[in-house]
Amino acid sequence: MKLIVIGGVASGTSAAARATRVNPDVEVTLYEKDDDISYSGCGLPYYISGVIDERSSLIINTPEKFSDKYGITMKASHEVTKIDPEKKEIHYKDLVNDEEGTDSYDKLIISTGAKPIMPPIPGIDLKNIVSLRTVNHADRHRRITTNSEVNKVTIVGGGLIGMEMAEAYAELGLEVTVVEKSEHILSLINSELSEKVENHCRENGVKFFLGQGVTEFKGKDKVEKVILDSGKEIETDMVLIAIGIRPVSKLAKEAGIELGVQDSIKVNGRMETNLDDIWACGDCVQSVNLVSGHPAWVPLGSTANKQGRVAGENAVGGNNFHRGILGTGITKVFDYIVATTGIKEDEAKAAGFDPFSITIKAPNHAGYYPGFEYFSLRGIFDKETGRILGAEGVGRSGVDKRIDVLATAIYAEQTADDLFQIDLGYAPPYSVPKDPVAILGMLAKKKI
Amino acid sequence: MKLIVIGGVASGTSAAARATRVNPDVEVTLYEKDDDISYSGCGLPYYISGVIDERSSLIINTPEKFSDKYGITMKASHEVTKIDPEKKEIHYKDLVNDEEGTDSYDKLIISTGAKPIMPPIPGIDLKNIVSLRTVNHADRHRRITTNSEVNKVTIVGGGLIGMEMAEAYAELGLEVTVVEKSEHILSLINSELSEKVENHCRENGVKFFLGQGVTEFKGKDKVEKVILDSGKEIETDMVLIAIGIRPVSKLAKEAGIELGVQDSIKVNGRMETNLDDIWACGDCVQSVNLVSGHPAWVPLGSTANKQGRVAGENAVGGNNFHRGILGTGITKVFDYIVATTGIKEDEAKAAGFDPFSITIKAPNHAGYYPGFEYFSLRGIFDKETGRILGAEGVGRSGVDKRIDVLATAIYAEQTADDLFQIDLGYAPPYSVPKDPVAILGMLAKKKI
Repeated sequence: MKLIVIGGVASGTSAAARATRVNPDVEVTLYEKDDDISYSGCGLPYYISGVIDERSSLIINTPEKFSDKYGITMKASHEVTKIDPEKKEIHYKDLVNDEEGTDSYDKLIISTGAKPIMPPIPGIDLKNIVSLRTVNHADRHRRITTNSEVNKVTIVGGGLIGMEMAEAYAELGLEVTVVEKSEHILSLINSELSEKVENHCRENGVKFFLGQGVTEFKGKDKVEKVILDSGKEIETDMVLIAIGIRPVSKLAKEAGIELGVQDSIKVNGRMETNLDDIWACGDCVQSVNLVSGHPAWVPLGSTANKQGRVAGENAVGGNNFHRGILGTGITKVFDYIVATTGIKEDEAKAAGFDPFSITIKAPNHAGYYPGFEYFSLRGIFDKETGRILGAEGVGRSGVDKRIDVLATAIYAEQTADDLFQIDLGYAPPYSVPKDPVAILGMLAKKKI
Repeated sequence: MKLIVIGGVASGTSAAARATRVNPDVEVTLYEKDDDISYSGCGLPYYISGVIDERSSLIINTPEKFSDKYGITMKASHEVTKIDPEKKEIHYKDLVNDEEGTDSYDKLIISTGAKPIMPPIPGIDLKNIVSLRTVNHADRHRRITTNSEVNKVTIVGGGLIGMEMAEAYAELGLEVTVVEKSEHILSLINSELSEKVENHCRENGVKFFLGQGVTEFKGKDKVEKVILDSGKEIETDMVLIAIGIRPVSKLAKEAGIELGVQDSIKVNGRMETNLDDIWACGDCVQSVNLVSGHPAWVPLGSTANKQGRVAGENAVGGNNFHRGILGTGITKVFDYIVATTGIKEDEAKAAGFDPFSITIKAPNHAGYYPGFEYFSLRGIFDKETGRILGAEGVGRSGVDKRIDVLATAIYAEQTADDLFQIDLGYAPPYSVPKDPVAILGMLAKKKI
């Protein structure tokens, strides 16, 4: 049996490796457009900031290492240009030797990932305007930021990548300005929490232009100014475009594969597309939100890894399943942890719930123990059933633990009373006798 | 309505405060034998070590403050000597003025807590042999340890308190020896994990005598030697007895209240005893293990707080419920976090499960991110259903989060597959794409 995998970052390598483990007789060929495979995209901001010194630390496997380890034929720097599901063939272009060719498959896995959105704003092609998705992008950042004439950077888009990079640039000593079209950064959390993150960023020297879009980039050769729709001009030496990503699904679409939310590839929990013998996984596919039951496209490395495993297993005769996502997300912005899971009020209403929210000032651990801090924890509950639907947290400490606990509770369809009942670990360095999760449950019970 | 609460530490104050909140018309009188109420027993080791400077930091409420805040009549330094359920009276002794009296109640809550076991070993009454339960005990520790002639301490019992105190004494520069009757310390975790903690303690200068009991304490006035059953003599300036605690339930028993496991007071989930109008809560009561369904006595501050809340609410006409415990426990031993939740293999077998365990070397977060460490994580699963029954963890970082996540999963009766599916937060500073919880689930799935 011959398996072709298109795309070799998180889900593609996960799928390819898993296929060879489950069925050692399968012949796997992996095509990747880039020259790097199997790297940690989530680590790129820390490589740019210098927190991670070595480029090689981010590379989990080189094509050679991966090939040796799993017996997979690696085709890095090979772009797949067409899938022919009738003939069970793919067409590719060898980007190094500029040659074209075809290859045949019995089973195909598409893991083409996602790519940054580059808006068609005048001046977008000026030098020093960058995006961030691959290790090569990160290398480009490092080349620009090490130039002593680059002192000011403007980030367009205050989402996860934008804010992680605000910290990274500040670490490098650059003056950081963030332009965000919405009234607040980090739309994954409620505005009362994102304001806290904005203030924390301001304390770290970051300037914000909120509720404003970019109309033009100006400069001779390199970018020199960012023009906002308010008319405001920001002097800059560099621009990061971080307004979002979109799934790379054109290849799949042209082959007759159905697309879903935001043009992501439609798959079921077995990672099957609508076409026989073609699976898809990772940042290019649609998933389902387990709370709302609605289709969702939330491209994250953790989900990609699981989906790759499932697709790889099923493509070679296995039987695995990915149930869906909760929309859990976490990031570090300077000294703050920002995290979310489950659904927001508007999504809850759309899914037929009657949501209400509670926000608490939550102790990370005992008040008398060193390192005591409050963080903000917000829970969204259904009024009728008391079910926990979503949660968000912001603060210096204790956030990641409670959001993972709440993600588990949300996954298991637990209620406010359950949050009170769960026997969580208490010792002064780790929590308080009534853990913030229990407090959230107690307060929510009162409102039901 | 008149409510009397006997015992004013965690559950007693919790019950009294909650009762006044739920029913502002209730008259509450709280009797406490000690002169301190409402303190954090779990914080005592950190007060002794000096990590917490001020005694007052441990005291959540003084009798005066508590009385003012909730309108409760406080009877500190008053020992209740008898409960008369027929007459609905209690008899007490005022320990300061050496006077006796009676008081009547409509509703009664017993929260008499637990006390350290002092074994009847020859020499146990020598000076500088101490236990640890109250703030007064901790004061006594501080008086002894600040004496420059006290350099060597022997801890009898390698449980939670014993090991927390090993760290505390080492912080104070004392030479620490731990004597434990079992082959390993910390029976709440498996021996393969407790060995890791023992080695970590040895690196911090702690000496162990394992599998050995104490036959005698020797000394003229103060303790000078600890004699082991092997004949070994340990020179010492001080001894901590930390072989366990037992519920304070004699008062309840004499009143005709039924006792259960280890003579703890039998209550249902509403915290009702077998006698009308008498509730009990906290370290003196029996609970139920939610995984095994068996009665269990696991006296911990977090459970006491919840039970106090439930008892206080129900005693004045409310309707709350405590479902039971998971046996979750966590402690800090030098730089290690030690945590457990759910049940062990032997308990699982006794409860009709077919248990197996998996131990992994778990990454706390991304390998390339600063502060990367492995910790040990062990999961106990049921072979037939794949249900997660218990978990244990030991290491420097990441343990408390995963044990709380697993406690939540165990509470919600989740399976190995669920652990793989749960959408936990991933970013390089907080986890890995496949969180240790998911890895545990994946490996367990293979064994089912």
